Amino acid sequence: MISITFPDGAVREYEKGSSSLDIAKSISEGLARKVLAAEVDGQVWDANRPITNDASLKLLTWNENGGKSTFWHSSAHLMAEAVESLFPGVKFWVGPPVENGFYYDMDLGDRKISEEDLLALEKKMKELSKENNSYTRKEVPKAEAVQYFIDKNDEYKLDLLEGLNDGEITFYTQGNFTDLCRGPHIPHTGLIKAIKLTNIAGAYWKGDDKNKMLTRIYGITFPAQKELDEYLQMLEEAKKRDHRKLGKELSIYTMDEDVGQGLIMWLPNGTVIIEELEKLAKETETEAGYKRVVTPHIAKESMYLTSGHLPYYADSMYPPMEMEGEKYYLRAMNCPHHHKIFAAEPKSYRDLPYRIAEYGTVYRYEQSGELFGLMRVRCLHMNDAHIYCTKDQFNAEFRAVNEMYLKYFKIFGIDKYVMRLSLHTPEKLGIKYVNEPELWIETEEMVRNVLKESGIPYVEVEDEAAFYGPKIDVQIWSVIGREFTLATNQVDFSQGRSFKLQYNTQDNKTETPIIIHRAPLGTHERFIGFLLEHYAGKLPVWLSPVQVKILPISDKFLEYAETILRNLKKADIRAEVDDRQEKIGKKIRDTELMKIPYMLIVGEKEMNEQKVSVRRQGKGDIGTKAVAEFIAETVLEINERREE
Amino acid sequence: MISITFPDGAVREYEKGSSSLDIAKSISEGLARKVLAAEVDGQVWDANRPITNDASLKLLTWNENGGKSTFWHSSAHLMAEAVESLFPGVKFWVGPPVENGFYYDMDLGDRKISEEDLLALEKKMKELSKENNSYTRKEVPKAEAVQYFIDKNDEYKLDLLEGLNDGEITFYTQGNFTDLCRGPHIPHTGLIKAIKLTNIAGAYWKGDDKNKMLTRIYGITFPAQKELDEYLQMLEEAKKRDHRKLGKELSIYTMDEDVGQGLIMWLPNGTVIIEELEKLAKETETEAGYKRVVTPHIAKESMYLTSGHLPYYADSMYPPMEMEGEKYYLRAMNCPHHHKIFAAEPKSYRDLPYRIAEYGTVYRYEQSGELFGLMRVRCLHMNDAHIYCTKDQFNAEFRAVNEMYLKYFKIFGIDKYVMRLSLHTPEKLGIKYVNEPELWIETEEMVRNVLKESGIPYVEVEDEAAFYGPKIDVQIWSVIGREFTLATNQVDFSQGRSFKLQYNTQDNKTETPIIIHRAPLGTHERFIGFLLEHYAGKLPVWLSPVQVKILPISDKFLEYAETILRNLKKADIRAEVDDRQEKIGKKIRDTELMKIPYMLIVGEKEMNEQKVSVRRQGKGDIGTKAVAEFIAETVLEINERREE
Repeated sequence: MISITFPDGAVREYEKGSSSLDIAKSISEGLARKVLAAEVDGQVWDANRPITNDASLKLLTWNENGGKSTFWHSSAHLMAEAVESLFPGVKFWVGPPVENGFYYDMDLGDRKISEEDLLALEKKMKELSKENNSYTRKEVPKAEAVQYFIDKNDEYKLDLLEGLNDGEITFYTQGNFTDLCRGPHIPHTGLIKAIKLTNIAGAYWKGDDKNKMLTRIYGITFPAQKELDEYLQMLEEAKKRDHRKLGKELSIYTMDEDVGQGLIMWLPNGTVIIEELEKLAKETETEAGYKRVVTPHIAKESMYLTSGHLPYYADSMYPPMEMEGEKYYLRAMNCPHHHKIFAAEPKSYRDLPYRIAEYGTVYRYEQSGELFGLMRVRCLHMNDAHIYCTKDQFNAEFRAVNEMYLKYFKIFGIDKYVMRLSLHTPEKLGIKYVNEPELWIETEEMVRNVLKESGIPYVEVEDEAAFYGPKIDVQIWSVIGREFTLATNQVDFSQGRSFKLQYNTQDNKTETPIIIHRAPLGTHERFIGFLLEHYAGKLPVWLSPVQVKILPISDKFLEYAETILRNLKKADIRAEVDDRQEKIGKKIRDTELMKIPYMLIVGEKEMNEQKVSVRRQGKGDIGTKAVAEFIAETVLEINERREE
Repeated sequence: MISITFPDGAVREYEKGSSSLDIAKSISEGLARKVLAAEVDGQVWDANRPITNDASLKLLTWNENGGKSTFWHSSAHLMAEAVESLFPGVKFWVGPPVENGFYYDMDLGDRKISEEDLLALEKKMKELSKENNSYTRKEVPKAEAVQYFIDKNDEYKLDLLEGLNDGEITFYTQGNFTDLCRGPHIPHTGLIKAIKLTNIAGAYWKGDDKNKMLTRIYGITFPAQKELDEYLQMLEEAKKRDHRKLGKELSIYTMDEDVGQGLIMWLPNGTVIIEELEKLAKETETEAGYKRVVTPHIAKESMYLTSGHLPYYADSMYPPMEMEGEKYYLRAMNCPHHHKIFAAEPKSYRDLPYRIAEYGTVYRYEQSGELFGLMRVRCLHMNDAHIYCTKDQFNAEFRAVNEMYLKYFKIFGIDKYVMRLSLHTPEKLGIKYVNEPELWIETEEMVRNVLKESGIPYVEVEDEAAFYGPKIDVQIWSVIGREFTLATNQVDFSQGRSFKLQYNTQDNKTETPIIIHRAPLGTHERFIGFLLEHYAGKLPVWLSPVQVKILPISDKFLEYAETILRNLKKADIRAEVDDRQEKIGKKIRDTELMKIPYMLIVGEKEMNEQKVSVRRQGKGDIGTKAVAEFIAETVLEINERREE
């Protein structure tokens, strides 16, 4: 018998050689039907692979990342089986799962794949799925594996085998298809019920443009048709809400070859959004007792050696500027500058918690191939702040930070979110993590307690902490269900010492403060990108670059329109008059396209009654109002930052 | 006879060989007494040097820079005469006029100069001054000059002679002192009526620390004792108001070796001032129809080649970051980024004037020896904006910019200011200035007209324009009479073309806009430095980091103090409670030191009556008020940005 330890700490005895699937069945048949793979002692295994020793076990279903990626990896094999059956002689390179689905790179000789081919392949995959073929694992000696692919005349797999040794080579077979593969895989093809091949692309072998161009086919699969349908609908919606498309249509931002890749220039409309977000942040932070600072965007090498960012983080930084025998770096993070502010004047316990905030601009080097609209850029405006506190103050401070997140989520209508608590692993102390075993455990426990107490949904992940302490990554979902990593919250018990930060305690000793790094609104770049998708460009009134457009029916009413404009401006409402000599229908259409929340139409009747006809974006005509009434209501809507 | 042309264009005939002083006498004896030197055909000459050809003439008195610097240069010679008379055998290096006064570097052998020596020298200089000795100019052949200094055993002047040729060597003599000198000088020593030697310093010969250390004596002189007294009093006052001293005392800013020289970090108190200034700028600019943008701090070399800043301006920029085969520069000016914003979307005449503003941060390389507090720094936050307009719009736009300056001057109580209109010189077209002779004349005339129309005091200076157009430097004086260069306004008819900026005219042609570069509040660094001196740290309430300090007489009244604090905060008043267990006298003294405008003292009587005893910084007790009354009055004072 072997002892199996479950995630909740329960331990049960099973026969030696039982598979995860056997164990799942012993719990319930329903559960067993959902199991795709399992984590055995922290490693993802085939669900039907026999377990021969005592082990910890976590069953993986579609809802776990490990389950999903195994499902898609098996789907890539299923696709390969279909390809081989329709296009004999094809040779395969690699076929991994990706963020959404999978792909497989292949050499089809001179054959070009068409959209119809994709449909035929999908059809074939569905047939093969229905065969419920098992994915079977077989360990193979290297010599045998090499012979197998020599016989198949497959130079690609032979190339892969070169890097592998006896004992680490496995083949996986389902139906008529066998592949060199580390695994793991799902139990059988029948689990793959919904299939969509999404894209064909070219990909150089090994990513090297001197090599042959292979064909890459992308696909995505689901355990049920309904989930595929929802996914495709979400994709369709996401295309309409693409922040790059909306960013251009609504004149939010631009980029320029002479300025440089990944360097956003915010047009006037985008800058209004930035200023409203900063206003919100400043109000919120001032109320929460933060003070603001302004620091330069550069510093000497010595500062980043102290902070530990150099040399380890150098690849993510712009190269240095060498001057007067010194190296200056464009900063990639604000914390060291803030530490210097803390250190600039002596601090006592009376000054703590010392909370300093700055919408700090940082520069990070991202590979040019990774750059993507507002989502991956090289210049970031970060909603940054650092809190220096005593150990006694930590709980309240960290909790207050989490509550600030919740406050923002409410304002922006973010209903789905989760906090990922990233922990250290003891094995990497002194390598990837500051070598302070007790402090790690203590701080992680402090953070865990705050998360539990405040009832925020969270998951724990090992080995993803920052080098100076545990961190929380905040994941949010847009209204159409796309996931975004918004920001991180970090606890830092290390940099305070590196920078020799100290405060005098009440009994006149010196102590090093704990530091909380936090940025609830993330960066302007990513957050505005998110908001454009989330709202499909139809921003709430308080965030809209132009809040009201006044549309006179003809020039005769231009003067009246200008009077209204002055009144709106006096009330700090961002408004414009459409004074073009266009028909009112065209004026309305153009304003709709710019997604301006309110249109005020003014003609004879409105002018005589000193009123306006109000149209609300997306809702149409909402009636006639006195100007003062419209202003009062709109000011309230803006001040309350109402979503609609 | 020769024809003399005066600055107003008048031409008069004089006898050949007349000196500027002769000509001045022919106008009035009073004027002649004030003449220190003269500009003859644009070159500064001795006032008593004979003029032998037709020439233009500008008489220089103490009020002209050329007059002042000649006066101080002659004073350096007078000091040298005194030194030689008291310390025979002294050898002199160079003795130029400087911004305020003059110095002379000398080799005194082993002798050390003391404060008493300075007094003795001053006394001697006054004696020599009373001798009314003329400064006489003599052209000397090189051989003769060399022999003179060989006889004197003076290796320093011999070194200077090495670089000079026959025909350009002149000696100047007054009384018993003769010096190798290019001149010019004032007519006689009697004009130097008020004398103060201010400082003794060491200075390496030729600035090279491998050379001998010479003695440098600084001094300043005036035509009347009253002016010297005022100057010394201003110095005394300026010392108390030194922005570096106040910056530290009031926790405004800090610097750090690890960040880098000349890189200001703004502490929370300084950041409040920054935010208030930005708020003022945003309000003012929004009302004036500006839109705001946000752009990165770096760009590729290609952009600065287009703008013309590279290679010419490279010495004032940080060195490039080389990456992906490109050079990226930290920007030293915001204009090219703004031009790219203009160019990002097609523009028509309906979009003009297009005014975009950004408190843009720029980085400039200043020699480390030139760095000085907030006045000369390497990172500058600039109140920048660019206006793109048609030629027809220029007058109104430029006038509006000037009026914005006047509005700011009023807010900050700046009573004395002058605008220096810097023009091109035709000789340097195509070298220092864009080669567009007609455009220069036309634009200069446009600017001159605006200045005349708006009645702003201005002076014209040749050969100081920007390379792309005429500019205005705005000089202001602090309340104690120190001069600051605040900002520049520039007209630019060239960069629009370099960046191929265009708009569609009403008749569907394309035109290049004229660009106005403007920054009325200069940079945060310089302006806040100015304000600290101007207000001696006692900032108006609206600019004060802490506006109100509540001082409970004892802990018994702490709760009442906290209630008042909450009410003040609700009214957006920046307030703090002094909750230390100190005597009220000490609390008041400490608050005075931090120059916080209002103190609210609360004890038994105030609590029972729900009132506060109000003290105003610098004024003392101003009586008891109801809390609501105090709040209402203070909110008004803040909103009106009252100076007191």
